[in-house]
Amino acid sequence: MAVPSLDEVRAFFRRAPFIADLGVDIETIGAGECTTSLAVAPRLLQHSGQVHAGVLTTLADHTAGAAAQTLAPEGSFVVTVELKISLLRPARGERLRCSARVLKPGKQVSFVEAEVYCAEGGGEQLAAKVSATMAMVSQKHLV
Amino acid sequence: MAVPSLDEVRAFFRRAPFIADLGVDIETIGAGECTTSLAVAPRLLQHSGQVHAGVLTTLADHTAGAAAQTLAPEGSFVVTVELKISLLRPARGERLRCSARVLKPGKQVSFVEAEVYCAEGGGEQLAAKVSATMAMVSQKHLV
Amino acid sequence: MAVPSLDEVRAFFRRAPFIADLGVDIETIGAGECTTSLAVAPRLLQHSGQVHAGVLTTLADHTAGAAAQTLAPEGSFVVTVELKISLLRPARGERLRCSARVLKPGKQVSFVEAEVYCAEGGGEQLAAKVSATMAMVSQKHLV
Amino acid sequence: MAVPSLDEVRAFFRRAPFIADLGVDIETIGAGECTTSLAVAPRLLQHSGQVHAGVLTTLADHTAGAAAQTLAPEGSFVVTVELKISLLRPARGERLRCSARVLKPGKQVSFVEAEVYCAEGGGEQLAAKVSATMAMVSQKHLV
Repeated sequence: MAVPSLDEVRAFFRRAPFIADLGVDIETIGAGECTTSLAVAPRLLQHSGQVHAGVLTTLADHTAGAAAQTLAPEGSFVVTVELKISLLRPARGERLRCSARVLKPGKQVSFVEAEVYCAEGGGEQLAAKVSATMAMVSQKHLV
Repeated sequence: MAVPSLDEVRAFFRRAPFIADLGVDIETIGAGECTTSLAVAPRLLQHSGQVHAGVLTTLADHTAGAAAQTLAPEGSFVVTVELKISLLRPARGERLRCSARVLKPGKQVSFVEAEVYCAEGGGEQLAAKVSATMAMVSQKHLV
Repeated sequence: MAVPSLDEVRAFFRRAPFIADLGVDIETIGAGECTTSLAVAPRLLQHSGQVHAGVLTTLADHTAGAAAQTLAPEGSFVVTVELKISLLRPARGERLRCSARVLKPGKQVSFVEAEVYCAEGGGEQLAAKVSATMAMVSQKHLV
Repeated sequence: MAVPSLDEVRAFFRRAPFIADLGVDIETIGAGECTTSLAVAPRLLQHSGQVHAGVLTTLADHTAGAAAQTLAPEGSFVVTVELKISLLRPARGERLRCSARVLKPGKQVSFVEAEVYCAEGGGEQLAAKVSATMAMVSQKHLV
């Protein structure tokens, strides 16, 4: 499968209502790699003022899926089988950035990792690390 | 720590902006147990029409945290250390229900499991299973 | 795939050198279910005197694989994609017992859970909980 | 806590019977980092001829624990809370090498990652990736 253009991925992200609703932006796409970002609106927070773990997971899952899709066999569609998220630090700041990379692509199953950083002031900190398994599903099974 | 009333948990959930924004409802609370539900609005979906994995994770994480909080030592506050979600089936339907249960409470760390069901027509199906680790943090560290 | 007899599973376990070396015994086998046990020899311990987490994982992984194999499509062979183990309590005692159950079988991927109990005196305690993903691999790919 | 010498770690590994029994060797130790290796004896295999996932997990868990211990507060002892292992490829070859690194140290909980490589001929391949959570336990609780 050819790596899609940024515009194609952006259009694809907009067709996922929850991703559009949160406001996830695509930043870069490459073979087995994808980076995204998300402005931290007040509605995305926990009671403690940090970004909700569910937001971090959503961002990481979608970015990991896009990274895996770039290496998927022609006609296959990536679905998440499972993921683990480790919450290293409270995510605070104005913006999240997520970077995902395929660790091992496969015809049946791909392994992907993603890191979520939060930017505050000039710096950036690793807030969460995700390890995900993606399955390749034939598109005819999805119709 | 005494088990809080449903009204106390409901007020607590409302102070978490992302949980209020999604529309998560508390259903039951008990010692080491919590159940919640969520109406599936179109904005919560994936491009494929199923509920986004990030929504399922958010619901499970928050419900698991509430279950762990009922058994937390006095003055301790539960934060998620890590969680794994296994996506068993596409989550479709009008409503999600989540049931969380503490597998092993602890002074430092608690282990919690959560199941997310989706209701369609009369029936209900297990869509996702979550295994989470929660840490007990002294409230003075959170201020 | 028909559920194999206890003798068939026992013979199968003996062909896995590490499982034979540890001394894992099959106890029961059924559709989507398997239980095993293991006598705790001194060489299986950690420096702290508890059973090493690697032993618990080995027992759970193999038992979960056997449970998944009973529901695998004809000609398919189960391999572990990933597993998570939560270590609830130090595993002490004379014997471990493991119970695995398929949460959701599939043609491509199956989800399995396993519990590891340790027996000391008359009682038994849940020491670890495992959540695993198994892939179905065509036997011709394994030759 | 000061980083221990290789000889100290080697002596420590020998006090863990299961690690001594498998034959795990310490290779390097540093602040937040540890590498180990293991000769692949026939008794460590699966029925399929690859190294059993339980062996990979044991190696990764122990190496990750040693890495975390180098950054643990004085008087604290590292215990594994949970770990996830992703099995990227069948592990074949004469020798395994494991490299662990602390992603985020903490007073209560540390996050560690480990990679297991298998060496065959001149090359080396990533066979498994592990993500682990370690808790810091006061040594007085362990006596």
